Amino acid sequence: MNETVLPRVVVVGGGFAGLWATRALASAPVQITLVDRGNHHLFQPLLYQVATAGLSAPDIAAPLRHILRRQRNCTVLMEDVASIEPQSSRLRLSDGHTLDYDFLLLATGATHAYFGHDDWAAHAPGLKTLDDALHIRRRVLSAFERAEAETDPDARRALLTFAIVGGGPTGVELAGTLAEIARHTLKREFRCIDPREARVLLLEAGPRVLSSFPESLSAKARRQLEKLGVEVRTGIPVRTIDGDGVQLGNERIAARTVLWAAGVAASPLARSLGVELDRSGRVPVLPDLRVPGFDNVYVAGDLASLQQDGKPVPGVAPAAKQMGAHVARSIRARLAGRDIAPFRYRDYGNLATIGRMAAVVDLGKLKLSGALAWWFWLVAHVFFLIGFRNRLVVMLNWTWAYWTYQRAARIILGKPDGSDQPRSTRQA
Amino acid sequence: MNETVLPRVVVVGGGFAGLWATRALASAPVQITLVDRGNHHLFQPLLYQVATAGLSAPDIAAPLRHILRRQRNCTVLMEDVASIEPQSSRLRLSDGHTLDYDFLLLATGATHAYFGHDDWAAHAPGLKTLDDALHIRRRVLSAFERAEAETDPDARRALLTFAIVGGGPTGVELAGTLAEIARHTLKREFRCIDPREARVLLLEAGPRVLSSFPESLSAKARRQLEKLGVEVRTGIPVRTIDGDGVQLGNERIAARTVLWAAGVAASPLARSLGVELDRSGRVPVLPDLRVPGFDNVYVAGDLASLQQDGKPVPGVAPAAKQMGAHVARSIRARLAGRDIAPFRYRDYGNLATIGRMAAVVDLGKLKLSGALAWWFWLVAHVFFLIGFRNRLVVMLNWTWAYWTYQRAARIILGKPDGSDQPRSTRQA
Repeated sequence: MNETVLPRVVVVGGGFAGLWATRALASAPVQITLVDRGNHHLFQPLLYQVATAGLSAPDIAAPLRHILRRQRNCTVLMEDVASIEPQSSRLRLSDGHTLDYDFLLLATGATHAYFGHDDWAAHAPGLKTLDDALHIRRRVLSAFERAEAETDPDARRALLTFAIVGGGPTGVELAGTLAEIARHTLKREFRCIDPREARVLLLEAGPRVLSSFPESLSAKARRQLEKLGVEVRTGIPVRTIDGDGVQLGNERIAARTVLWAAGVAASPLARSLGVELDRSGRVPVLPDLRVPGFDNVYVAGDLASLQQDGKPVPGVAPAAKQMGAHVARSIRARLAGRDIAPFRYRDYGNLATIGRMAAVVDLGKLKLSGALAWWFWLVAHVFFLIGFRNRLVVMLNWTWAYWTYQRAARIILGKPDGSDQPRSTRQA
Repeated sequence: MNETVLPRVVVVGGGFAGLWATRALASAPVQITLVDRGNHHLFQPLLYQVATAGLSAPDIAAPLRHILRRQRNCTVLMEDVASIEPQSSRLRLSDGHTLDYDFLLLATGATHAYFGHDDWAAHAPGLKTLDDALHIRRRVLSAFERAEAETDPDARRALLTFAIVGGGPTGVELAGTLAEIARHTLKREFRCIDPREARVLLLEAGPRVLSSFPESLSAKARRQLEKLGVEVRTGIPVRTIDGDGVQLGNERIAARTVLWAAGVAASPLARSLGVELDRSGRVPVLPDLRVPGFDNVYVAGDLASLQQDGKPVPGVAPAAKQMGAHVARSIRARLAGRDIAPFRYRDYGNLATIGRMAAVVDLGKLKLSGALAWWFWLVAHVFFLIGFRNRLVVMLNWTWAYWTYQRAARIILGKPDGSDQPRSTRQA
């Protein structure tokens, strides 16, 4: 069969939705182009481990073209997509080239949003990409280093205060792990400060942490966080964030490190579709994940807004994988002139990790917390990692960290301004 | 004994010289402050592996304060040293603080120099720090990605041409490994280009590569490089380097990736000593590694210029370790009112790796090349790595890479401008 006459499927975004769709089309009579502005698929559930120096970036990422090297009907392009022109079934890349498609899957995911306070971004970095994670790692490790050199007690206290905004899974993971680092990992490594004096605050405007879990597990999660040494504040909104700290209701918290785990918004690319978006910028899709008005445009993953049984399908990895697989099935069916049932999200349960031997697992009837939940979470996540080698290294790092409380990637890279332009000497 | 009356030893630079000196003073009646502007000791002999995506940054680095956590007489400070005031035995840090010393060891190492062509730096990055390595990794991996998207054949050829300037150990390592990546690692992962068409050129102005080795081994190294697919050009100086390539004698080489492994210069901090420096900015030291005119100032490692038996002591890791240990012995002796013999460099041999199963080893009478030399090099280096865990992970990555030709860290991080400021979405 002549390649050039095959229908062209363009997938934008190499996350869970895009990659799972691409793989599910491996044997389909289509030519696929997977476009991502990075060169790798990222295992986002472990991203907080990179941000907290437990894993190094390559441990949780694999090059997309390596994952797909044997899938002959797929071309991987590392490109920036500037806009979508759905009327002409065409993508415009930022390098000026265009890309025509017969079917488009838009799966560019979500980014963090600051509820209109974009000036907070500079003071409170969020965690979505590996660059975000390395940025946070540098900020956290540098805070301890600067505290060791700081002589003024107030300035030192502010350097040793870490405020995490947002009590969802990411906020809980970051808070629990930071407390563990301060209490155990860095213990005895400093001479002028005691890292155990560090304060880790988790700030949640809503009534409870992990609000997507049943109340009983939220309560258990809070107790586990407090056992790890995290100060949990719920029910009070953050008013302002600046370089010196956070205004929480009427309370001023001096914190030189503020991390953002609160707001999430869909990737801005969706706007160029020209359809009505929901409040967080996601694309409302039909039950078959197509965009109303554009027969050949699908949206999947965190970028898609879909109601099921009166509840929104959550922005989690399993939902993204299921959506991606469904889009592939739908394209196959249409090429074969068949119809398929609309997408249905199968919820296999909800997991969140908190820290060493601390997690919560909600499998519907079965609810776990503590050590058992943590082991459940660890095995489940490490074995979802793509690439056998990664799993090996991650397990090795994890086991090592577990025995020794040490973390493998406590290396400060780049300059405070975020650039990594070569430094001129090894030292000063 | 009252800590405050102990003599204050300040060590600047946490490389081999500084760290070995610090450790050798563990039981001495002194209080040590180790100042480094980074937070980690770097195992530089494996830095080229990070630059070529074989290892991730944390694999070859360990936090200085973790290495030294049990050495109670040592404080580690992550600070930038702005200048030295030897007359008043004082260091000035860039944060304005000062640091007084009774003994100073200056071990800030070397940086790359462009022979007065500082404008070449932007086009031809050098390899001295982890940031340098990640910068080179991004440039190399991005070149292949951009070639895949490039439609113009000339532009594509330039993207697939890699020129390494300098035929010393670093240049040879980079050239050999890049050829291996193009020929094996990336094979079959691209659809529009064949990475095996990539050209890797090693440009050495002198008559032969690895000039610090006997001619017979230089010749063997050259043959091994050519077997790996590297074009070796000796005896022709590079005239200019710009964004599009290299002018080699009368030949223009269009190469979008040029790496600099030619010139080395001492860290600029030495200038503030106010003593006469040698041509490459190093500090000529007395046979006991002290600076003429300053009784309490030592210089060790790549920053020190010392002749022994009419030959300069080479700027290699073993020499730096030996110098550091000697400085520690000298300080101990002086505190005990004893004298010690001047420093003597013991040359245990010279090793250079070229690529997979390719290396040269010069142990004086015994000269090895090829697979045997490579195994010798591998074992020697991996087992010098600080930290048991690192060794494990490095061995694991290496074994994996060896079986599969794959490389563990093929992740493009940061933006082309070198900044790693958070990106807004996972894709486009």
